Amino acid sequence: MILGAWARLRAERRAPPSFVVGGPELLRACAEALRIDCPIVPIADPAEALFAHAAGLPVLAGLDGMLSPGHPDAVGARLALASLQWGTKFALSGVAAGLVTAPVSKGALAAIGWDYPGQTEFLADACGRPYRDAVMMLAGPSLRTVPLTVHVALAEVSGLLSVELITHKARIVAEGLRRDFNVVEPRLAIAALNPHAGEGGQFGDEEARIIAPAIAALQAEGIAAFGPVPGDALFTPRARAGYDAALCMYHDQALIPLKALEFDQGVNVTLGLPIIRTSPDHGTAYDIAGQGVADPGAMAAALVMAGEMAAARAAADG
Amino acid sequence: MILGAWARLRAERRAPPSFVVGGPELLRACAEALRIDCPIVPIADPAEALFAHAAGLPVLAGLDGMLSPGHPDAVGARLALASLQWGTKFALSGVAAGLVTAPVSKGALAAIGWDYPGQTEFLADACGRPYRDAVMMLAGPSLRTVPLTVHVALAEVSGLLSVELITHKARIVAEGLRRDFNVVEPRLAIAALNPHAGEGGQFGDEEARIIAPAIAALQAEGIAAFGPVPGDALFTPRARAGYDAALCMYHDQALIPLKALEFDQGVNVTLGLPIIRTSPDHGTAYDIAGQGVADPGAMAAALVMAGEMAAARAAADG
Repeated sequence: MILGAWARLRAERRAPPSFVVGGPELLRACAEALRIDCPIVPIADPAEALFAHAAGLPVLAGLDGMLSPGHPDAVGARLALASLQWGTKFALSGVAAGLVTAPVSKGALAAIGWDYPGQTEFLADACGRPYRDAVMMLAGPSLRTVPLTVHVALAEVSGLLSVELITHKARIVAEGLRRDFNVVEPRLAIAALNPHAGEGGQFGDEEARIIAPAIAALQAEGIAAFGPVPGDALFTPRARAGYDAALCMYHDQALIPLKALEFDQGVNVTLGLPIIRTSPDHGTAYDIAGQGVADPGAMAAALVMAGEMAAARAAADG
Repeated sequence: MILGAWARLRAERRAPPSFVVGGPELLRACAEALRIDCPIVPIADPAEALFAHAAGLPVLAGLDGMLSPGHPDAVGARLALASLQWGTKFALSGVAAGLVTAPVSKGALAAIGWDYPGQTEFLADACGRPYRDAVMMLAGPSLRTVPLTVHVALAEVSGLLSVELITHKARIVAEGLRRDFNVVEPRLAIAALNPHAGEGGQFGDEEARIIAPAIAALQAEGIAAFGPVPGDALFTPRARAGYDAALCMYHDQALIPLKALEFDQGVNVTLGLPIIRTSPDHGTAYDIAGQGVADPGAMAAALVMAGEMAAARAAADG
């Protein structure tokens, strides 16, 4: 997927200056096996990446491991973990302007002692931030959504919502859009939880009890938040033109419209950390991994978006 | 909206043979005020509709009332109720092949003593069927969805799901697709309730406890049902090509993708009743009613779909 994305971006002359953290021999073997035209240029130090870029895909040497794509094992997990650790260090120190992560096997990582629910939690920890500061935003060409609750049973969502949760994450989203997406005054649409926003309290009161007070608090701070907008009214073409991000109350409320509208273009962005971090919005897809049949569109989009975010941040930070 | 839809369909030569149940003077005044080119042809009996059709829009005389569009009152409510009652009778008796309803003000109807939560419940009653047999399906050009629970708080959805609910409604949907949509062997995608379908029980067990057993029961009856499919995986273009209808666990799971993808083309179809019934998938929009600015696309789509369903049913019933 990395190879396919890079080859595509290079052909389109859109590849941002970037390098892969580890795996030069592995990637060279994959490129040969899949007959992907992607010259691998091993580099000894990230500083060489900019110069190596013209010749091919720069890949940091020193970390490597021959593994069978599609068969998660300890070799692959150790390589993934080392790559993630080094990549975070490079991004934190400023050697890299941002970090793009690929899907990992959480099972294989757990088997070698990794103790995080996902990469985002690991990154928050590595950045010295509480996990609640790491806010997932899904971004495609025509839509950005933020799920305020993520991997929890639908029946538990209502009990997890609070004014504090919504305002805390909304502030991080507004700041992220300003700093990394060049949105001067971010407009945040806040979704309702219940159908028809509860129809005036007839079915559900979370809108009146939690969501509306959160919106009022955000507005009082000068954040252009509005809602609660009934979920089904939030993603029509006309509605989408009215906001820069939609804050959703649960996973599928954010992911259903994004995958329906942007399918293979969705990028997972982590806001609220000191580093820029993107990843393709799909899983490991081990059933097709390493076969060259996966659409590299999301990985390519994640690479391009990280580059654009880095440029926007550099401009914003002056 | 009726006038706009009819004028558009007539210009495109797609208007199915149809008539409006009541309101010839009202509609004539509206057409004049809005300068819509839609000759009103009052008819005394539905049997005249077919011949009147060439000259303009046939409208049943005898029921009428001058009202101010956008201002629901008792006059409008009485006209709407009479129109609904007569329309149902015509459809039940076979005088009409189907019924297309427009949005109504439930508040104004309640004020004159109408005691139903919505038109669908009224129609089930008028057809002598229990309300649970009336299944709402939202249909657009590229997607059909069925919400298995509708106007309830999201927190209550889990408690309302049962194997019986899913299988009962799925049977009605399969039969409706066969008889009225010319789908020989309907493929039904059954959505999961929880994100990632609960990830093997990690967040929510409704998939294992309720949804999977319902799918197994349907398959045992020869219905091509499959799932539980995670909500966010169900509406990508590739996924949509694999089924004829998606059965969703709650309102927004069905309505979000439909309105995101089909916006003004969505038709609300009632399956499970002896009559064919469609309506545009939007509300009364009183803020713009009678001004000629509402997009008549959904009403036109509802008219065309009712005509196609009637033709399919006539063929299916031999």
